[in-house]
Amino acid sequence: MSFSAVELIIKKREKGQLTTEEINWLISSYTSGSVADEQMSAMAMAILLNGMDRREILDLTMAMIASGERLDFSQLGAKTADKHSTGGVGDKITLPLAPLVASYGIAVPQLSGRGLGHTGGTLDKLEAIPGWRAALSNEEMYKQLQEVGAVICAAGSGLAPADRKLYALRDVTGTVEAIPLIASSIMSKKIAEGTSALVLDVKVGSGAFMKTLERATELAQVLVQIGNDAGVKTSALLTDMSTPLGRKIGNSLEVEESVEVLAGGGPADVIAITVELAREMLAHSGITGVDPVENLKNGKAMDKWRQMISAQGGNPDAQLPKAKHAHTVVAEESGHLSKLDALSVGIASWRLGAGRERKEDAVQFGAGVELHAQLGDWVEKGQPLMTLFTDTPEKFERAQEALIGSVEYSENKPAERKFILSKVG
Amino acid sequence: MSFSAVELIIKKREKGQLTTEEINWLISSYTSGSVADEQMSAMAMAILLNGMDRREILDLTMAMIASGERLDFSQLGAKTADKHSTGGVGDKITLPLAPLVASYGIAVPQLSGRGLGHTGGTLDKLEAIPGWRAALSNEEMYKQLQEVGAVICAAGSGLAPADRKLYALRDVTGTVEAIPLIASSIMSKKIAEGTSALVLDVKVGSGAFMKTLERATELAQVLVQIGNDAGVKTSALLTDMSTPLGRKIGNSLEVEESVEVLAGGGPADVIAITVELAREMLAHSGITGVDPVENLKNGKAMDKWRQMISAQGGNPDAQLPKAKHAHTVVAEESGHLSKLDALSVGIASWRLGAGRERKEDAVQFGAGVELHAQLGDWVEKGQPLMTLFTDTPEKFERAQEALIGSVEYSENKPAERKFILSKVG
Repeated sequence: MSFSAVELIIKKREKGQLTTEEINWLISSYTSGSVADEQMSAMAMAILLNGMDRREILDLTMAMIASGERLDFSQLGAKTADKHSTGGVGDKITLPLAPLVASYGIAVPQLSGRGLGHTGGTLDKLEAIPGWRAALSNEEMYKQLQEVGAVICAAGSGLAPADRKLYALRDVTGTVEAIPLIASSIMSKKIAEGTSALVLDVKVGSGAFMKTLERATELAQVLVQIGNDAGVKTSALLTDMSTPLGRKIGNSLEVEESVEVLAGGGPADVIAITVELAREMLAHSGITGVDPVENLKNGKAMDKWRQMISAQGGNPDAQLPKAKHAHTVVAEESGHLSKLDALSVGIASWRLGAGRERKEDAVQFGAGVELHAQLGDWVEKGQPLMTLFTDTPEKFERAQEALIGSVEYSENKPAERKFILSKVG
Repeated sequence: MSFSAVELIIKKREKGQLTTEEINWLISSYTSGSVADEQMSAMAMAILLNGMDRREILDLTMAMIASGERLDFSQLGAKTADKHSTGGVGDKITLPLAPLVASYGIAVPQLSGRGLGHTGGTLDKLEAIPGWRAALSNEEMYKQLQEVGAVICAAGSGLAPADRKLYALRDVTGTVEAIPLIASSIMSKKIAEGTSALVLDVKVGSGAFMKTLERATELAQVLVQIGNDAGVKTSALLTDMSTPLGRKIGNSLEVEESVEVLAGGGPADVIAITVELAREMLAHSGITGVDPVENLKNGKAMDKWRQMISAQGGNPDAQLPKAKHAHTVVAEESGHLSKLDALSVGIASWRLGAGRERKEDAVQFGAGVELHAQLGDWVEKGQPLMTLFTDTPEKFERAQEALIGSVEYSENKPAERKFILSKVG
């Protein structure tokens, strides 16, 4: 069936609903190039401003899946569960979570991405481990899932190519923030990846994509609906991203902290969110009545981590790259930390070299920020608050500029921080 | 000053107002190619859905003017007045109007366009006259204005190039119908053309761009504001386009009817609108108390027409091209014509070959429709209602399909048709 791109744009512009056939035609024509970038960006803006209903968003997701290949783990002999985070500062949860869930016999096929902007990327972090490689063939991925039970690797280019093309377009046309487009982008990759259960970690706050609980809840509801409509058991946790997650932000630094958690230690917020996400993934796979903290404490999750890293060429015992230069930032006042802004710390870490400006840039594995106190902690004036790390000391100045106004102090202890704000599905 | 295209798109997307500097940067960067088509189309959609205020629209117009050259008739020694129509079916008014106004000593520098879709183009009509040429250099145009006082020619490519580029983009991205973009497109060319007075003929009804009096009034108000803000004496008439203007639709056919009007005859609607627009143009140039009908009756406007056509190589006495084939459509009932739909007749004429599918197509000069009765007239069943003309008789079928449902009959005489609905400014 053939349609006119202009007529479909006008239909959405006038708040109409696109039919399934229209959405299928639009996405396949955009993938093949017969619908032009300038037409798709006008459509994306119309979608952003006029919205899409539940059926349209599901159709859009399924059309993006249909633009490429679809993985199939039905012959694996184990249940599969996956997790997706909408991205934040210091969000290394995938690293301890995948081996933790796999330690209970659930296969975790975790396709991950790289960082862009102030949010880090799981693959960049793992690449700090000498020898580890992100690119696996579908066959290698399948084999590792069978033998180890957990794999974190790059999504192949065959998965939802329409999404890859549309995402790059949205990035330069001011159309990133549309919930139907965000949701179909996330879910097309996750559904094409073939998992049977999915838990979403929707971050809320300054360091996240969604700044308010209201918007985050709206996104979480749409994501959960699409997943369940497509036959994937899906739920979402809304978690706090007003302040960085854990004490370490950067590539090597986040691997270090993940290993601390897998060794039974680590900061309370990272542990809490890892354990709660694991509980959801296990429950979707029929495993209830276990406390995932156990396998963090007894070393089973750590064993799985070491197998997973080794299987992809990494040496889990190797020394991680360290930054050549460090700079300590001290507390300007005495008091409880009543604000320690996620976005500011994320931008500082990015500017130190932990992230990239353009897709083709390399990251510095050792760069980043280590916090010596977290939100709510008491600090004395002059006490080290955080250490900045980089290989290129000329970057300290702009990193420190990003931190201006990022910290506030109060005499009274602030209310206990809630790590998990809400749950959907 | 430099800006980020993405940030400006997001600003408009969030209903913000763009500053003068931002609009200037956007238009000059789009003209030079550093803002990409896919960015400009997203911006156009955001403007269509979120609007622009009066200052932004004026800035956009001035930025489009600044993208190219600007004509200057200040040394001409005569006042200048121009007219613009938003386009309709059978709208040949420019042809008798320009020489009529020039016959009172006012210089009329009428830059015109070609037809696209179901609305005809003034240049296509005049090219039906053997020898007549549309393309004049700026010097030729100036000389003809001095010597004859009226010139109808193609806008040079140096005038508002940003508008040309943006118009082509809007055409393929579903962003044509935005009042700020329509208004700045029209007015940038008219202001750059250097006229000191301007009368707008804003068409309302099925055959027009603006289907309702409300939308047409809104557009007219914006156009008049921009003109007056830019120092051009501007007013607008809102005229009926629910039914074709005059009895002849097509290129040669409309030249014929224009000559009838210049000879003191012609249909009442064409005469009324021509005279009223002339009265406005003369009033803006300080000439009041004259009745423009006089110079239609006494041959002065016809003399000016002949000079104007001759000056551009045309032979005003030449036989106009005739279509090779004709097909008569008869009345299906007896009654007053209570509906004779402009859009349907426009599409029929277009399909007969009077218009073009793509910009690069040629038009058939003889093709079109001649009406044997107008709205409100009494017809007897079986009496000829209209004649269709084309050089390619296989086109009759699709033209007749366009006419299905276009005519209605009533026993009672409908209320007198108002040619001029309202006036702005």
